[in-house]
Amino acid sequence: MTITAGGGTAATSEQASEAELDRLDAWWRAANYLSVGQIYLLDNPLLAQPLRPEHVKPRLLGHWGTTPGLTFLWAHLNRVIVQRGIDAMFVTGPGHGGPAVVASAWLEGAYSERFPDVSRDGAGMRRLFRQFSFPGGIPSHAAPETPGSIHEGGELGYSLAHAYGAALDNPDLLVACVIGDGEAETGPLAASWHANKFLDPVSDGTVLPILHLNGYKIANPTVLSRIPERELLALLEGYGHEPFVVDVDADSDHMAAHARMAEAMDRVVDRISDIRAGAVRGEPAERPRWPVLVLRSPKGWTGPRTVDGLPVEGTWRAHQVPLAAVRDNPEHLAQLEQWLRSYRPEELFDPEGRPATELDGVAPTGTRRMSASPHANGGELLQPLRLPDFREQTVAVPRPGAVTAEATRVLGEWVREVVRANPSNFRLVGPDEVASNRLQAVFEVTDRLFAGEILPTDEHQSPHGRVLEVLSEHLSEGWLEGYLLTGRHGLFTCYEAFIHIVDSMVNQHAKWIKVSRRIPWRRPIAALNFLLTSHVWRQDHNGFSHQDPGFIDHVVNKKSEIVRVYLPPDANTLLAVMDECLRGRDLINVVVAGKQAAPQWLAPDAAVAHARRGIGIWDWASSDAGEQPDVVLACCGDVPTLETLAAVSLLREHLPQLRVRVVNVVDLMRLQEPTEHPHGLSDREYDLLFPPDTPVIFAFHGYPWLIHRLTYRRHNHERLHVRGYKEEGTTTTPFDMLMLNDLDRFHLVADVIDRVPGLGVRYAALRQHMLDERLRCRDHTRHTGEDAPDVRNWEWTAR
Amino acid sequence: MTITAGGGTAATSEQASEAELDRLDAWWRAANYLSVGQIYLLDNPLLAQPLRPEHVKPRLLGHWGTTPGLTFLWAHLNRVIVQRGIDAMFVTGPGHGGPAVVASAWLEGAYSERFPDVSRDGAGMRRLFRQFSFPGGIPSHAAPETPGSIHEGGELGYSLAHAYGAALDNPDLLVACVIGDGEAETGPLAASWHANKFLDPVSDGTVLPILHLNGYKIANPTVLSRIPERELLALLEGYGHEPFVVDVDADSDHMAAHARMAEAMDRVVDRISDIRAGAVRGEPAERPRWPVLVLRSPKGWTGPRTVDGLPVEGTWRAHQVPLAAVRDNPEHLAQLEQWLRSYRPEELFDPEGRPATELDGVAPTGTRRMSASPHANGGELLQPLRLPDFREQTVAVPRPGAVTAEATRVLGEWVREVVRANPSNFRLVGPDEVASNRLQAVFEVTDRLFAGEILPTDEHQSPHGRVLEVLSEHLSEGWLEGYLLTGRHGLFTCYEAFIHIVDSMVNQHAKWIKVSRRIPWRRPIAALNFLLTSHVWRQDHNGFSHQDPGFIDHVVNKKSEIVRVYLPPDANTLLAVMDECLRGRDLINVVVAGKQAAPQWLAPDAAVAHARRGIGIWDWASSDAGEQPDVVLACCGDVPTLETLAAVSLLREHLPQLRVRVVNVVDLMRLQEPTEHPHGLSDREYDLLFPPDTPVIFAFHGYPWLIHRLTYRRHNHERLHVRGYKEEGTTTTPFDMLMLNDLDRFHLVADVIDRVPGLGVRYAALRQHMLDERLRCRDHTRHTGEDAPDVRNWEWTAR
Repeated sequence: MTITAGGGTAATSEQASEAELDRLDAWWRAANYLSVGQIYLLDNPLLAQPLRPEHVKPRLLGHWGTTPGLTFLWAHLNRVIVQRGIDAMFVTGPGHGGPAVVASAWLEGAYSERFPDVSRDGAGMRRLFRQFSFPGGIPSHAAPETPGSIHEGGELGYSLAHAYGAALDNPDLLVACVIGDGEAETGPLAASWHANKFLDPVSDGTVLPILHLNGYKIANPTVLSRIPERELLALLEGYGHEPFVVDVDADSDHMAAHARMAEAMDRVVDRISDIRAGAVRGEPAERPRWPVLVLRSPKGWTGPRTVDGLPVEGTWRAHQVPLAAVRDNPEHLAQLEQWLRSYRPEELFDPEGRPATELDGVAPTGTRRMSASPHANGGELLQPLRLPDFREQTVAVPRPGAVTAEATRVLGEWVREVVRANPSNFRLVGPDEVASNRLQAVFEVTDRLFAGEILPTDEHQSPHGRVLEVLSEHLSEGWLEGYLLTGRHGLFTCYEAFIHIVDSMVNQHAKWIKVSRRIPWRRPIAALNFLLTSHVWRQDHNGFSHQDPGFIDHVVNKKSEIVRVYLPPDANTLLAVMDECLRGRDLINVVVAGKQAAPQWLAPDAAVAHARRGIGIWDWASSDAGEQPDVVLACCGDVPTLETLAAVSLLREHLPQLRVRVVNVVDLMRLQEPTEHPHGLSDREYDLLFPPDTPVIFAFHGYPWLIHRLTYRRHNHERLHVRGYKEEGTTTTPFDMLMLNDLDRFHLVADVIDRVPGLGVRYAALRQHMLDERLRCRDHTRHTGEDAPDVRNWEWTAR
Repeated sequence: MTITAGGGTAATSEQASEAELDRLDAWWRAANYLSVGQIYLLDNPLLAQPLRPEHVKPRLLGHWGTTPGLTFLWAHLNRVIVQRGIDAMFVTGPGHGGPAVVASAWLEGAYSERFPDVSRDGAGMRRLFRQFSFPGGIPSHAAPETPGSIHEGGELGYSLAHAYGAALDNPDLLVACVIGDGEAETGPLAASWHANKFLDPVSDGTVLPILHLNGYKIANPTVLSRIPERELLALLEGYGHEPFVVDVDADSDHMAAHARMAEAMDRVVDRISDIRAGAVRGEPAERPRWPVLVLRSPKGWTGPRTVDGLPVEGTWRAHQVPLAAVRDNPEHLAQLEQWLRSYRPEELFDPEGRPATELDGVAPTGTRRMSASPHANGGELLQPLRLPDFREQTVAVPRPGAVTAEATRVLGEWVREVVRANPSNFRLVGPDEVASNRLQAVFEVTDRLFAGEILPTDEHQSPHGRVLEVLSEHLSEGWLEGYLLTGRHGLFTCYEAFIHIVDSMVNQHAKWIKVSRRIPWRRPIAALNFLLTSHVWRQDHNGFSHQDPGFIDHVVNKKSEIVRVYLPPDANTLLAVMDECLRGRDLINVVVAGKQAAPQWLAPDAAVAHARRGIGIWDWASSDAGEQPDVVLACCGDVPTLETLAAVSLLREHLPQLRVRVVNVVDLMRLQEPTEHPHGLSDREYDLLFPPDTPVIFAFHGYPWLIHRLTYRRHNHERLHVRGYKEEGTTTTPFDMLMLNDLDRFHLVADVIDRVPGLGVRYAALRQHMLDERLRCRDHTRHTGEDAPDVRNWEWTAR
């Protein structure tokens, strides 16, 4: 066992005393005992009787391998927390080590405070053991049910990003983040190492990454445990850290291991203190080299060395349940009992099952307990945003279509005010697209945080700033999730197509929220807000790879209670929608809006009312005069709205007698039934907008079948004809994009002629004329490279 | 300008001669000229006349910033290719530098061979310029339309994984992979660096990563360009590479820059040769430290230094189109002309626009040209797999339900034979789950490839092996894509929930295939095959985070011509389906199958026939005797099939007079209309299976609304009642999972009673009994932790 400092020069604090480490070891043994008990025991929690098969669960589910390393780290963090009065959180990258964090929370008392029936005594211990991975009980991972956790850790890869998100704007917080060596192979984790360049050592907290080299994943060795030590140290130094390594093998004396880890932890914390103190004093100017701790320990440490003659401790066989046949195999049963008794439970718990007094003082108390950190139940700390009145930024729209604006640029001016009004609990994140997405007004009041070298040619870069931009959707998402989960607010702006990169992260966050909502002590957190722009219809520069509106489809698979999808048709509606989103709690809000100059339709009051309703008839564009229309032209999304209005304009010219109703949809979930989504229109309301026998031509921003799916139980769905993106695209003009997908105005008019009974025969010539116009526009664009003419300047009646 | 070798000791070859570098510089200037021409010019390609506004495109789309670095690297790679007779490919991480690779392909003649109308002369050059980012023309990225490309590079992050996939089993191939410093911030790229531990230096080819430090992304500096040199070198050494750095600034003399790059390239290639020769001789035993090349050059190198008084070259302003107002601003026009003429086109092209003879010999010829590499059009090299007869591995099923098997374990035995029969063009990839997913029979004939340290406790690890396992779905997917795109075959096995991690990669691959299918010279490549197992219904260990069947929903948004989704109900059907998948071309096949022991339903012949039909009535489970049924019980997926048959068993017992039809769906796309998907049943066929007036209770593996979406135009969709996963889950028993989602047998029987007209009133007691049974099972599982009883041993009639 060695401790290596990769060139570190930190002063070492006083060494931990032997007595102190004895107590710490007892605490560690207790946590390990409680972990093994959770995995195995139905009954006889204190081993008051000899272990019998019926004391053991019939189905053994859980992950032992990573667990003793986690309890070891928790115990040693507790030592420095107590000694130095540190506020700390624990992020469990290997979340499958749930038994470790549950055990620690129970030992610290936080578990029983949250779940009084799981009391801190023998009866509670029996429940603690029984409920783990048991039907009706608790999950095997560090789930929302786990006090002190903000990170489930099931889908590996996001721990470090979550940790950095938690540290932002929490200058007094130390976020200890255990990274499993399996997790370290994932892309999101690998990208997150560089998050240390996006941290302000004065106004943000500290992240202590702890790389736990366990040696094995499920069945394979891990990469980082099998590269030479010099490469590992170079890698961590290359990430910008100062590494401290603690190396333990199965033969290591436990007390010696504790001494080494205590020494390393002291040096690490000293180093952190030095950096922070220096930063407050304004020195040094260059980016700090924060410490990283490496713990190399055997997988399944302190568990069975061999089972059935095969090595287990220190191998992949220790990953889940080392002894698998305890109920049927007496040898396994005996080995389990021996294993449990090896922790000497009789020293650790009194006869009533309460933790022995010897353990007192090993862990901190109150909110210093990592299991009781208020940051890990962020809703407790949540302060509502101060939201300036967005009417200051609205665009004057004297009549529909009369003025042009860039929706996200207008929004940016309001977001600037939000940033200004909330200088320490609101963050903007994204992959290098704040300016590209035209929110650059925010840079009038803040910068992009960057702790690397800054050159004179840079703009809006500084070591302080509210905006985090890195070319990683994963890191952006992880930052924001960590920030929200610890009780703050934010907005993620992204190119629409590339938000799919975080599909799986959003899945996991949705699951977290869904479960949290049902746990009384989990307080609501701020909504996860996405602004998706540079969207499918306006990716002129980049072409097909940048054209994908499918994220909406992805999120609507999540629990309806937590998902909202908005497609505001213009700048004022976008402002009203975003104001609503920033007030949301325990939600995922997806807003899709363009950044290009486009006609504006609604004056501020009308926009607010429209956003509030979420769907409505645009009388000024309709010609049904409140009567039964011949056709409904529905639209959802800014570009489809423009094309629909252009089609209406053509219809007014060529088919003035046709009674056309225009329905615009902002809140997509209004289309679903109220039984399916809380925003769903009743059938009666729906039928008033879309009369059951009237054909509907629906121009949609995304894949057309989503509209069919949302409306499949509605009365008129057989008369619903949807146009949208059908996966046709390239680098071309905006008009050509519409043509490729049959969403252009001319095609919509042809659709009307096809769908309204009686028109097809009488207006075959007009239909042909429309298709000819279409080709004429295409030829124009293909010959000149110019876009097709914009919407006609129809004199819409303002409302 | 410096060249630094990070401790490398490679012998240096003879220096490049001045004349040689002069020719190389001319070639580079030509490529740059052709790049700028593509971005700007509609006409006057050779600048035979003074440049006028009408020669310039009305919409300027493209990315200049990365382009000159790409052409520089391409030219220098060409030098060593020619000198040493290397077979090489070029993977363009910054795919938005499309002008560079298109220009290179045109200079090398490959472009005109693929597109004869874009001839290698002035007329062709005019077309080359005009078509770029132009309606009806070509995309701005290194798209499928680009000869020599396997990588579009629009969604950044996958270049290095693609490169490693291309190098596998191509021992004579050098894959040069340019990684942009923006791309380097992404998670997938960050994870891919460690792919160098999964390469066999004897039987696989070489990947040369080239980190191109351009300094800026869209608007932000890049992380890797702003860390100290010592950190950068440590990072690359930590990744296991030997770094060689070439540093150029805007003031560098171009000829000196060439000399330095030539020297570095020679040293890199020498080092690679040494490593490969040593490996063939069996030395050294330890993992090679492959070279990595770093090029630090100004963004927009050789472009305008300043525009409108602001710095452009070397800054983020050079990212796209440095001169944005050329048509309207005479100063910009003059600057563009000056810029174009700075390359001295009159020296580079003859009066007919053909590349000057001076350029001859700079680039290689034939298939040595990177733009004409057959590997970059993998279908040209594709050999069909030798597929052993899977009937050797089928399970004897004397009657339905009589035997139990683990479907993926059975499949593994056949995959073992596939691996054995195809020792150099079939790979299995996945995130550490081959054994967990029970395909471990493959380890009887091969190992997992791992070039890191191997310990005695490891199993099936070796520096040679057909299986690639790393805990990164991104890297797994990237490897396989690169392998397929270069003409080989493979299978990706993954936990169902976590395949969402690669949603966006699959999007991009789907787009690539969709476009490739329409390009005559792009030959079909092997299907991208997913086996998703450890699925939503059987994630007993891991709980909610591991429960997500939504990948199917994701892929069905892709072009229907390339997507297939199969849910075989048992082992024999899985074998038949997988045999079909491995024969597929230009497809994405998704197969979902369980790994747990489960009853088997179909004997081999029946399974083959059922898989071929994709959907069918199971007569042996039905009681409609070929007549009009009272109810159809449809099922799709192994667990829903089991529950459906259990429900049928209950119905036979309690409602023996009810005419029940059981329809099993293997090929999900059969449900769609033939206009929507090539596998779609005609309405007539559909109506024969699902009579229009008959209620259907559909038990589905995934989210229920997908079935509604697929069938929304079918006649009986209003009578279709779907049960599936509704986002309820945790760590619990398999039966409890079904209950939580109302997919259990008892609930299905209650659904039948509710839906079949007339049953509700008469069988209210039976319905209540079913719901009581359900609760009894739940109570059993919650009290004991045991699963509920399995399907009854009904004597199904074999067929």
